[in-house]
Amino acid sequence: MQFTSEQRFDDGVLEREFTLGGIPGIVWTPGSAPAPLILLGHPGGLPKMYPRLVARARHCAAEGFAAATIELPGGGARPRSAAAEEARADLRRALAAGEPVDDEIVERLVLPLVEQAVPEWRTALDALLSLPEIGGPVGYAGGVIAIGTRLAVVEPRISAALLFAGSFVPRSMFEEARQVTIPLLVLLQWDDEGNDRQLALDLFDAFGSEEKTLHANMGGHTGIPQFEGDDGNRFFARHLK
Amino acid sequence: MQFTSEQRFDDGVLEREFTLGGIPGIVWTPGSAPAPLILLGHPGGLPKMYPRLVARARHCAAEGFAAATIELPGGGARPRSAAAEEARADLRRALAAGEPVDDEIVERLVLPLVEQAVPEWRTALDALLSLPEIGGPVGYAGGVIAIGTRLAVVEPRISAALLFAGSFVPRSMFEEARQVTIPLLVLLQWDDEGNDRQLALDLFDAFGSEEKTLHANMGGHTGIPQFEGDDGNRFFARHLK
Repeated sequence: MQFTSEQRFDDGVLEREFTLGGIPGIVWTPGSAPAPLILLGHPGGLPKMYPRLVARARHCAAEGFAAATIELPGGGARPRSAAAEEARADLRRALAAGEPVDDEIVERLVLPLVEQAVPEWRTALDALLSLPEIGGPVGYAGGVIAIGTRLAVVEPRISAALLFAGSFVPRSMFEEARQVTIPLLVLLQWDDEGNDRQLALDLFDAFGSEEKTLHANMGGHTGIPQFEGDDGNRFFARHLK
Repeated sequence: MQFTSEQRFDDGVLEREFTLGGIPGIVWTPGSAPAPLILLGHPGGLPKMYPRLVARARHCAAEGFAAATIELPGGGARPRSAAAEEARADLRRALAAGEPVDDEIVERLVLPLVEQAVPEWRTALDALLSLPEIGGPVGYAGGVIAIGTRLAVVEPRISAALLFAGSFVPRSMFEEARQVTIPLLVLLQWDDEGNDRQLALDLFDAFGSEEKTLHANMGGHTGIPQFEGDDGNRFFARHLK
């Protein structure tokens, strides 16, 4: 993990950009004492996502949490995969035509992404937990929900997850969802045009966790109400502190 | 409104039982200054419901809200309706047999209850708002969701409602649900065996409110997690203060 830049905000939060095995990432720490860590999931493209990510990270820091994220495969300056681009184009075509999205398209788009991204997040977690400003436990917050689901199953250091049901999940991953046992808070934007509401409700139903909560709101894909940020902090405070 | 008993709890909350036109009720006030009021909905049977109602009322009072409730038609010592009892028996039979509940049964059970209860709640509201310890605005919190829905449409003094989707609503009331415009927080117990999850989701979809949030949790009909009480208080703090 090599730090490439650092800045301190007026709320005392230290932001450091890093690269790890060629993958760019950002870590935010609220102070010098070891803090629980929240991994911030996102749809890919760190430079474009930065304004929202830094706002989420500083909101986490206000509750005493460190936060970190890494670029997704194919996101930002990372090499695109031709197969993923093709699958994404097929998905967009189906959505634009108002057709049901074939599970085969979702598999082609999501499964390779999950296969590649999850080991990268785990490697990043190794490095992040070696920083003196980060202790444990660890939470995952955000999209891509298929990545969060896989991480919740395979990564025992993740104790709770806030999953944004804003992207497609192949039905073949439902069996995996049944294996999730950590506490979950699932966010669903009820009228998210680029998402499948019934799929999200079925996925919520499939999760094996004894404690799982669904929060559904109006306002479209990017219209998650501000109070959900506070609810998220309280969710993690219950489970990571 | 005639007070029939009063007691003060060690947190300073004053509880007063009353009768109003022969209907028993309870009002809880956190202090002498006018407080916003939350009407506590329940399935009927004040004596049996009292432990849960007083806990909810004191939780409201801790956030500065007054709370009040009245007995439902057919609940507690109030006269039963033969037609309602018959409809309830038909509902129980269908549920026990694992059959889909016919909307006709729900109509027979719920519509007369709504027709009778809603004017009673409005009369109670008149009396409650005349107390010096109660100001406004007013919220409604709890079941029966069909009563809460009707109140949200016809009673302009109600500014926000937390509705517990734990009871059946006739499909004929969906048109009414579309007329609801106040902010809503709808609670759904995901695996509530005596309830119809899809009906609850369809009802949430039907509500016309621009700000509506659904919170779904595990734990069966009576297993609403404790943190939902805090979420409810924050919901009302956003809208009644």
